[in-house]
Amino acid sequence: MYIPTLDDMLAARERIEPHIHRTPILTSRLLNELSGAELFFKCENLQKAGAFKARGASNAVFGLSEEQARRGVATHSSGNHGTCLSYAASRRRVPCTVVMPRTAPQAKKDAVRGYGARVVECEPSTTSREAVFAEVVAETGAEFVHPYNDHRVIAGQATCSAEMIEQVEALSAVVAPIGGGGMISGTCLTLSNLAPGIQIFAAEPVQADDACRSFRAGHIIADDAPNTVADGLKVPLKDLTWHFVRNHVTDIQTASEQEIVSAMRLIWKNLKIVMEPSSAVALATILKHPDVFAGRRVGVIITGGNVDLDTLPWN
Amino acid sequence: MYIPTLDDMLAARERIEPHIHRTPILTSRLLNELSGAELFFKCENLQKAGAFKARGASNAVFGLSEEQARRGVATHSSGNHGTCLSYAASRRRVPCTVVMPRTAPQAKKDAVRGYGARVVECEPSTTSREAVFAEVVAETGAEFVHPYNDHRVIAGQATCSAEMIEQVEALSAVVAPIGGGGMISGTCLTLSNLAPGIQIFAAEPVQADDACRSFRAGHIIADDAPNTVADGLKVPLKDLTWHFVRNHVTDIQTASEQEIVSAMRLIWKNLKIVMEPSSAVALATILKHPDVFAGRRVGVIITGGNVDLDTLPWN
Repeated sequence: MYIPTLDDMLAARERIEPHIHRTPILTSRLLNELSGAELFFKCENLQKAGAFKARGASNAVFGLSEEQARRGVATHSSGNHGTCLSYAASRRRVPCTVVMPRTAPQAKKDAVRGYGARVVECEPSTTSREAVFAEVVAETGAEFVHPYNDHRVIAGQATCSAEMIEQVEALSAVVAPIGGGGMISGTCLTLSNLAPGIQIFAAEPVQADDACRSFRAGHIIADDAPNTVADGLKVPLKDLTWHFVRNHVTDIQTASEQEIVSAMRLIWKNLKIVMEPSSAVALATILKHPDVFAGRRVGVIITGGNVDLDTLPWN
Repeated sequence: MYIPTLDDMLAARERIEPHIHRTPILTSRLLNELSGAELFFKCENLQKAGAFKARGASNAVFGLSEEQARRGVATHSSGNHGTCLSYAASRRRVPCTVVMPRTAPQAKKDAVRGYGARVVECEPSTTSREAVFAEVVAETGAEFVHPYNDHRVIAGQATCSAEMIEQVEALSAVVAPIGGGGMISGTCLTLSNLAPGIQIFAAEPVQADDACRSFRAGHIIADDAPNTVADGLKVPLKDLTWHFVRNHVTDIQTASEQEIVSAMRLIWKNLKIVMEPSSAVALATILKHPDVFAGRRVGVIITGGNVDLDTLPWN
């Protein structure tokens, strides 16, 4: 297992700079009043392809050798990683295949195809996904880019907090949602090297709290059929992300479905941005724990903005 | 009638700088493809108090003499100007009264009160509003800050396009929605002086097309009970804004209700921002007129983001 380093993050930063946005920081007087903290929202919903995952995907794609690039990349994802890998592949003009369950939302398949990638459908089961994915790789020789348990991906995500500490002075804590742990691992990589005084908190839905339970237990525990409105956070930790979580995260806090939806609505109303339920879990845990965050300068990572406008969770 | 000048804009810029955001410019590959143009969205929905009107209101409030300031400010508005004047007054800690129809949405009244201003209700008629407003001014001696037909307000709004031409090089056109004409007048003020090569287009709902008809007729025409989803654009031109429209606007284009809602949805989906129907009229007219805009670099002003999340027009 190769653990990515600060040098990998710095190389990623240079490599992906032409392909990603330096996303803005937004603030809200009302959200500061509600939390008692000074909150600085890093808006990765405004990132290329609508999610921070454009960073890791771009780093993986643009780090390929010419020979690897000719064979292209492949992944399995029904979420932002599939879209973002397609985006990055389109920028380098290399082939990209995304294996998705046939039951995935049409909008997700359209987004991948919109970047010129190929969608290969599987049945909605792990067995089918793995079988279909193996066929794709055998057929194309494509490089597998895992959604999060990949050192190239983590080094890419790590560029987000590198920007944030340049944009906001004297942060005392950073809060980001945790699913598989790619963003949190990248945050750990950067901050543990460049700003070790900043505490790192992960935020997770109560109804998909495998990372929190893993953290308390000291070993990886997977959820049994998690179900949450924060649908980007259902996946489990893997060895590489567990390494960062175990060694560098201060705490993992959880929020209920109602707290997540309420925080999402507060962000839409006050920051005037469209973002995903998964991104709202961070604010939900901050509002729930004024004892931890009040009086502090806190960075909050808004991870993505690809949401179905027809089925907003408060309607 | 005093016509504000470039010097007034420059003074406004210095005066309001501590009280407003320099709002970001966002772009979208997909919206560029759909329009055939290069679009640069100036996001005043991310402005303080959620609308560009924080600029004009701040300029008016911070330009008051000490004696005027003690008596405070007053206006009549059930929209963004009331909220933004309250915001500006709260920053200078001066009294502010907003006359609103008792039928105005509770959220609008709450927003004004949230900034510590006083709401005085009137009946939903022009007669009642004028009578109640006259009482407020007689009682308080407050300075009236009109929502748009006020040289201080126009000089404040003019700072928006001054920022935009610093943020985006080589613009060929700017498109902004037109209601009473405050933003368009400010845009005309700045661009006619600093970048006279940039064409200025105003965008208006078909169902509230008084500015368009005025422009064609050569004199102000008011609508008879306009009704549009773009509810910020129902008010008529007045002498000061008509001066700028008549002399500096290249054309006024209109869009149907369906075109406005469709453009609003495209912006939410692709720019990941929460903005008002009124702000979508600009993109709607751009998509309708590829003959005018294709191949050009076009600035688009997103005017505000104060929308009711419970009643989105596509649901």
